[in-house]
Amino acid sequence: MSKIGIVFGAKSFEHEISIVSSIALKKVLNDELIYIFIDKNREFYHIPTNKINSKLFSSGEYKKFDKLHINNGGFYKTALFGDKKIEFDFALNVTHGGDGEDGVLASMFEFFGIPFIGPRVEACVVSCNKHFTKNYALSCGVKTLPSLHFTKNDKIEIDEFPCIVKPVRLGSSIGVAIVKSKEELSYALDIAFEFDNEIIVESFINNVKEYNLAGTKANGEFIFSIVEEPKKEEFLDFDKKYLDFTRTERVNEAELSDVLVLKLQDNFTKIYNHTFEGSLIRCDFFVVDGEVYLNEINPIPGSMANYLFDDWAGTIHKLSRSLPKKQIINITYDYVNKIQAAKGK
Amino acid sequence: MSKIGIVFGAKSFEHEISIVSSIALKKVLNDELIYIFIDKNREFYHIPTNKINSKLFSSGEYKKFDKLHINNGGFYKTALFGDKKIEFDFALNVTHGGDGEDGVLASMFEFFGIPFIGPRVEACVVSCNKHFTKNYALSCGVKTLPSLHFTKNDKIEIDEFPCIVKPVRLGSSIGVAIVKSKEELSYALDIAFEFDNEIIVESFINNVKEYNLAGTKANGEFIFSIVEEPKKEEFLDFDKKYLDFTRTERVNEAELSDVLVLKLQDNFTKIYNHTFEGSLIRCDFFVVDGEVYLNEINPIPGSMANYLFDDWAGTIHKLSRSLPKKQIINITYDYVNKIQAAKGK
Repeated sequence: MSKIGIVFGAKSFEHEISIVSSIALKKVLNDELIYIFIDKNREFYHIPTNKINSKLFSSGEYKKFDKLHINNGGFYKTALFGDKKIEFDFALNVTHGGDGEDGVLASMFEFFGIPFIGPRVEACVVSCNKHFTKNYALSCGVKTLPSLHFTKNDKIEIDEFPCIVKPVRLGSSIGVAIVKSKEELSYALDIAFEFDNEIIVESFINNVKEYNLAGTKANGEFIFSIVEEPKKEEFLDFDKKYLDFTRTERVNEAELSDVLVLKLQDNFTKIYNHTFEGSLIRCDFFVVDGEVYLNEINPIPGSMANYLFDDWAGTIHKLSRSLPKKQIINITYDYVNKIQAAKGK
Repeated sequence: MSKIGIVFGAKSFEHEISIVSSIALKKVLNDELIYIFIDKNREFYHIPTNKINSKLFSSGEYKKFDKLHINNGGFYKTALFGDKKIEFDFALNVTHGGDGEDGVLASMFEFFGIPFIGPRVEACVVSCNKHFTKNYALSCGVKTLPSLHFTKNDKIEIDEFPCIVKPVRLGSSIGVAIVKSKEELSYALDIAFEFDNEIIVESFINNVKEYNLAGTKANGEFIFSIVEEPKKEEFLDFDKKYLDFTRTERVNEAELSDVLVLKLQDNFTKIYNHTFEGSLIRCDFFVVDGEVYLNEINPIPGSMANYLFDDWAGTIHKLSRSLPKKQIINITYDYVNKIQAAKGK
């Protein structure tokens, strides 16, 4: 049993699903959980585990609990005689979207020396920018669907429909639209550019198969989840997609050939190594004519993809004992001393 | 005149040159400067501008000055009756290398809502990882020299010499070596892998011309520096390269055709847009047979490349009035309320 700091909420379009996702983890972790909520103003609060409930947050009631601040080594409560540290063995970053998945929290944990499970800065940047994801996948030898990249002031001409318009930086289908004809294009572009000044336009491929595979690496060995074939409607909207975030029941495994499973795992490995060390991620793949394409990387998947693993809690514990170590940096002042010596001071 | 917070030091192989670089800025900014030092343990100190001197840091004397902490809105000094904010109009990130250029400080400024000049998280990641720089340049339509990418466990076979071995993540020539023959390779690889678990190996091209161009964008318009042809020795080592960091005198402009200058500016613009908004950067280019190749992006160049601009201080002020705005995120709790309604609670 560990003491795990569940960090969630934050200034993010996915603030609410982070709340739901974090609460779901109560059912799948037998550890002592320390809930650290980041409110929309980026203030930290310690929410007692036995009190946690989604209503606390919408009502603003969370403010009656202890306010914390972050500093070297962790989170602290201001107390009359010095600050009191909130103890935990490691933090689990369950902050979907902004702050959690864009590198902000990873940086804060890094700066303040807080051990954590979650994507590091580079991993965040390559997964939360869809244009970068494609470049990154390419450089790892993993295919993605062809796409065009535009910025707000570009002249945009599209001739193939249907296509999918996606803001470059938001996850969770926000601002994403399937465009069936030229007439629908400018509306979809307006919506997408409301969320970002860069977009990508992908071909919409019919009868594409979708498979999700989660996994992590601990002590140099990969641990894979089962492969899930997500329920497909033409396109999952925000609400439907986020049913995932409350899930704690095991889903059925997709019926796939061993060859295809190995192919998916091989692609996962290429994406994960070494950029995603320290995190448990879900890769969403497309399969078209037996070829595997990366659709997206979820560096903090809904309810941490617990429902895809035989022993998710065990996996998290293994991972927590195998977090990436940072380079030791010796600061000697040799260079400054040399300059001073040269100046004769 | 502004109040500018100069943030420097930090846990970085370039800690010392950040000190030297920051002190150099005293000579070129007429503003009120607030020096905020991050020591190697990542504690913040406010160093009085009239006391600043490189010796303060090597001797540990900086510890006698006010210790600060970071929180919403800025840096604070603990005072008897509540915290006292250290006021400045904007921060200038002069933290070369780790913390400053890898996205950590950018994230902290973002999280705590501190306006700053410096590269944002994405900009940091694409410039401080040489492998990502190449992918990024490619996706912007900018050429780079061909290279191979290896990780620690890969079988490495190189047949062309001389070549250059570079750790993927460190700037400043640390761990970089020119390898003239097969015999020298394994030593160079050992050194490079001491600093990173990923490296790139580039061909060494003789008689390549090197040109540096700095610039920024304010109010949608680019401001370019002159083009500098850095003094070339076969290879600049750490000490030689960092003479740059103390420089405050204008250098001579490279004698180039207008066509080549425009070509360099065009490549700079492609790299800068939109990823580098908010920062003043220097792009180091190679020119081979009239073709321009990006060598590296310095998102926080030595002494902020002041010596390359006609009016560097004016440029910094323009940039400070044109910092990127973050998306407004409304958190409504609609989704959580919907779940609660569905549960009948």
